[in-house]
Amino acid sequence: MTDQLVLKGILEEIYPLHRTLVSDGSDRALEIIASNMPEEANFTIETYAPSTPVWTWKVPERYVVHEAYLEIEGGERIIDFADNPLHLVSYSLPVDELLTWEELQPHLYYNEQRPHAIPWEFKYYERSWGFCLPKNDFDELPRDKRYRAVIRTEFVEDEERGLRIGVGAILPEGGVDRQAGEVIVAAHICHPMQANDDVAGVVTAIGVAHRLAKKPLPHGSMSIRFLFSPETIGSISYLAHHEDLIPHLKGGIFVEMTGNENSLVLQRTRQDDHLMDRVARYVLVQSGQPFREGEFAQVIANDERVINGPGVNVPCISLSRWPYEEYHTSDDNPDIIHEEMLQEATNVIEDIIRIYATNFVPNRTFRGPVFLSGHGLWVDWRENWDLNRAIEKIMMRFEGQHSVFDIASELGLDYWETWEYVEKFREKGFVTKVALPSEGSAT
Amino acid sequence: MTDQLVLKGILEEIYPLHRTLVSDGSDRALEIIASNMPEEANFTIETYAPSTPVWTWKVPERYVVHEAYLEIEGGERIIDFADNPLHLVSYSLPVDELLTWEELQPHLYYNEQRPHAIPWEFKYYERSWGFCLPKNDFDELPRDKRYRAVIRTEFVEDEERGLRIGVGAILPEGGVDRQAGEVIVAAHICHPMQANDDVAGVVTAIGVAHRLAKKPLPHGSMSIRFLFSPETIGSISYLAHHEDLIPHLKGGIFVEMTGNENSLVLQRTRQDDHLMDRVARYVLVQSGQPFREGEFAQVIANDERVINGPGVNVPCISLSRWPYEEYHTSDDNPDIIHEEMLQEATNVIEDIIRIYATNFVPNRTFRGPVFLSGHGLWVDWRENWDLNRAIEKIMMRFEGQHSVFDIASELGLDYWETWEYVEKFREKGFVTKVALPSEGSAT
Amino acid sequence: MTDQLVLKGILEEIYPLHRTLVSDGSDRALEIIASNMPEEANFTIETYAPSTPVWTWKVPERYVVHEAYLEIEGGERIIDFADNPLHLVSYSLPVDELLTWEELQPHLYYNEQRPHAIPWEFKYYERSWGFCLPKNDFDELPRDKRYRAVIRTEFVEDEERGLRIGVGAILPEGGVDRQAGEVIVAAHICHPMQANDDVAGVVTAIGVAHRLAKKPLPHGSMSIRFLFSPETIGSISYLAHHEDLIPHLKGGIFVEMTGNENSLVLQRTRQDDHLMDRVARYVLVQSGQPFREGEFAQVIANDERVINGPGVNVPCISLSRWPYEEYHTSDDNPDIIHEEMLQEATNVIEDIIRIYATNFVPNRTFRGPVFLSGHGLWVDWRENWDLNRAIEKIMMRFEGQHSVFDIASELGLDYWETWEYVEKFREKGFVTKVALPSEGSAT
Repeated sequence: MTDQLVLKGILEEIYPLHRTLVSDGSDRALEIIASNMPEEANFTIETYAPSTPVWTWKVPERYVVHEAYLEIEGGERIIDFADNPLHLVSYSLPVDELLTWEELQPHLYYNEQRPHAIPWEFKYYERSWGFCLPKNDFDELPRDKRYRAVIRTEFVEDEERGLRIGVGAILPEGGVDRQAGEVIVAAHICHPMQANDDVAGVVTAIGVAHRLAKKPLPHGSMSIRFLFSPETIGSISYLAHHEDLIPHLKGGIFVEMTGNENSLVLQRTRQDDHLMDRVARYVLVQSGQPFREGEFAQVIANDERVINGPGVNVPCISLSRWPYEEYHTSDDNPDIIHEEMLQEATNVIEDIIRIYATNFVPNRTFRGPVFLSGHGLWVDWRENWDLNRAIEKIMMRFEGQHSVFDIASELGLDYWETWEYVEKFREKGFVTKVALPSEGSAT
Repeated sequence: MTDQLVLKGILEEIYPLHRTLVSDGSDRALEIIASNMPEEANFTIETYAPSTPVWTWKVPERYVVHEAYLEIEGGERIIDFADNPLHLVSYSLPVDELLTWEELQPHLYYNEQRPHAIPWEFKYYERSWGFCLPKNDFDELPRDKRYRAVIRTEFVEDEERGLRIGVGAILPEGGVDRQAGEVIVAAHICHPMQANDDVAGVVTAIGVAHRLAKKPLPHGSMSIRFLFSPETIGSISYLAHHEDLIPHLKGGIFVEMTGNENSLVLQRTRQDDHLMDRVARYVLVQSGQPFREGEFAQVIANDERVINGPGVNVPCISLSRWPYEEYHTSDDNPDIIHEEMLQEATNVIEDIIRIYATNFVPNRTFRGPVFLSGHGLWVDWRENWDLNRAIEKIMMRFEGQHSVFDIASELGLDYWETWEYVEKFREKGFVTKVALPSEGSAT
Repeated sequence: MTDQLVLKGILEEIYPLHRTLVSDGSDRALEIIASNMPEEANFTIETYAPSTPVWTWKVPERYVVHEAYLEIEGGERIIDFADNPLHLVSYSLPVDELLTWEELQPHLYYNEQRPHAIPWEFKYYERSWGFCLPKNDFDELPRDKRYRAVIRTEFVEDEERGLRIGVGAILPEGGVDRQAGEVIVAAHICHPMQANDDVAGVVTAIGVAHRLAKKPLPHGSMSIRFLFSPETIGSISYLAHHEDLIPHLKGGIFVEMTGNENSLVLQRTRQDDHLMDRVARYVLVQSGQPFREGEFAQVIANDERVINGPGVNVPCISLSRWPYEEYHTSDDNPDIIHEEMLQEATNVIEDIIRIYATNFVPNRTFRGPVFLSGHGLWVDWRENWDLNRAIEKIMMRFEGQHSVFDIASELGLDYWETWEYVEKFREKGFVTKVALPSEGSAT
């Protein structure tokens, strides 16, 4: 791919917005995503009214910040939301009080390890209020003064201005194949002024969408759905409103933190040894780059807890470059993002999807060993020694138990070489194509 | 438990009786058991007529001994049943004969290893007659005299005086839960003048019944059935008369030889890795005492061969302190029985039952990760670090595949802590309770 | 067996014939086999018309060779089919041409490793023409002469003179037991002037048939079917014409190369750990002779690829003495065949069949441990210690999960001792006999 989409540019546009569960900054982020997704994705935005029950949760209110600042009584304004949205604890309650240092201190947040940086804090569900500031600034605040804390925020219940998610799908050649099902690629959008966590994942997903739009998956492959939403409550709200979709989802990829310099880490599905895990590992090994692996929800927990969670159960891996030191501070900014890292993650996800979405279970229609030379299926050992050696073993694996990827893996063959050879049997009518089973729950 | 029932006192009352498969001494033993079982057990005695077919067996006749002795012709009476029932081989045929030493010798039994003790012998099914005596006495009998052997026994077929078993059940709070099923605790009563094998097991079972009567199992737990009967034929007769019960039996515990000084040994179920085995092992490990383990019917075979046998198949462990040197001799008497050993065995069985009988499979009704803080299900890591770390993994195990005990074991948590936390989900309606499956055969 | 059939004599009669897929020599071989099979086998010959579709193949034409030779132009006849059928590449097309050395050379075949021997070559499906000769002769042919190649062959489509196979079956006492099913023993007949590969296998199969005719399998055992046919296309043609038979086939034994001096090698079934594999290994171990093992189709591929192939799937082992150096050359002749080797292979196959065909799954009708002494089923430990120790464990394996062979293997008992003991339970009505399941495909 020579004319690759430059992902960091999109990231820089989304990065500084005041994004949170439901906020105008998040809406704006979705608009920027919409304008950067390929047309083929038919990107749309859905809105869910606050307080709508979604499974065991409910949709939160819109969080509107009119102003928020901290002043030394009769003196300097030392913290202002207008300077940086990180200064305000997300979903802080309104306040307008004069406080002593002792009263104020429990409402101040800083990061010991990064004394120069503003940390990011939130109180979504057990609400309170607070300000975030560098440890260096905290240390210098006078202990003997009184402080005025002003937070003018609103929790808006207007159903027209509810929680928003963005969704689009890239179809294979010839359009949707309902039996084949879908892969969902998810990224969250709700971390204010955070570049790697989470805009890096967002732009990686956009990059993948462009690749698949440019060179579509072959006819009969899975469709690829892209979901952009606030963490946890976003994917819950979306799936709770589209329960019929769940049994069609054959796999999921959650992506975040793809721009920093660490190696990629594959967090396995809840199933732990699902085809999705094995395909991802195969692609990572093939990439030739070092990578790491970890158990479900044990590397860094996110929306895969929903997608692959109880009663949903779509096998969902997560890919990231976790850990990195700037996490959840004002240091997580475009300075730590590398285009090359974003592109490498895009490559890996593209390759995983191309294999996972084309894979199927070939099911024999013939009896006895096939008359290979009589049907143009003979592979000359002078042309392809490995495949020649494997023909018999491939033919014995058309019993509806093995996917093409399984066959290739068991026999140590290249996926695409095997896929092409099996396709020849399918064209001759010697095998039928069985879609991979869904693990997505119907209830 | 401060006011514990003293078990050795009951043992001493039952011990000296002439107990055998069907005998007046065994009837008397059941009466003593009846008077010592807690009232809540509704202890009853059932009688089965001799010759009644019970599966591939038939109920034996009552064995009545009028007198039995051995005299040197015209001289001293050297063996008398009236002195000790062990002197007579159980179920000896009647005889009244003058015999030479050569004729007599095949009918005399002694124990080489314990020359001062009378061994216990029986000929239940391939009948003959015989006397038992200490090796020391045997050695001194004159070889050149003739002996008069007199055995006046009767094999009574009277159906009113058939084989007797005693049975009682302690129910959970609120009464029987038919779905939950039952655990059966079995001990045999038929070894004449043997303290450890078998009265120790009998009084341990009585002790357990008192504990469960005093502090009943919570509502919805299994009921606990106590069976006292002659070995093998007793449990066969009982189950053959109550076949409908078998599929309701979720587990069994056979208990014997609990009074001597050896450590406890867990003989596993025929299933070998059943929940019953794992719960028993967990309790034994928690007890902090050394213990041993062995395979089904390979430590010391007993009624678990029936309860867990072909066509019954209720997973039945056995607990004992096997081996001990005094086994099947007159040395197996109250001198080798320790109250402390009986109580320790009682503790272990009580704890096994409390866990096994309350355990159940929680089955999810929700979708997605539960909104914990919104439903009072959040566990603060400052209050319980281990449980906090495990919440996600607990929630992922509500798929009807794991019992509470399995969940606790897999996550290295305490059973009761886990049970209480899962109960909170049940109270909120987020899981339903599925009773453990039965392995008891319907045919 | 004192009056054993001498197998090498039959081999010498079949060996020199011009046998190929469909040829007069192969027909003659079947006639010789017919005259040597025991009468009880009801040996018959079936004919399939050329071009008949058989699964993904079609029946080949009859190959008739009128004459075939190579001469130096105007001079010596250096190769003549009349001297040895190996001189002509099987299924060579007709030719009558004058060629330069350069034109001729691609049509000449020799064996570098055995320069004095004529190799065997064939072009069944991708047709051409060619001559085979010793490397020593090849080296001496003048390079500067022209050669006349004459091959007068016909590919006959006459349906009366189609592909022939021979088949017979030895039944157990009392005749066919349809539930018990069949074992198929297969050998191929189509290698011209080759003694070990393939006539050795043919005569071994004949030897086995005689053993089973002389001492029939007990009533209720499997029937034993013997198939003699050209390699691959023969077994495909036969099974494609008798598809109903497949689900009745419970196992297969392919046999070839049994006359040379190497040890026996067991090539396992496609199932890899099937009862057939375990019985064969048990017999080979019991034989006391060294033997080797290998995976399905990885030792030496043959008709087991059909019998145990896709859509047929009858678990089929192969027994041979592969490898041997004379393979596919004129050195594979009666000089390398040893009567003793043939007989040893016959013994092994007979023993495998006797166990495999009598084996069954005993299914309990009783409940509880059986009253052994009351039913004459007690085994005195003084008579048979091992069996006495195993009684309980045998009784616990009558749950329809274990065959008699499995029970004997798991408990380290002799098969026949176990079989006789289980038969006693069957005679008493305590177990019923369940035939082994078929893995043969219905489609």
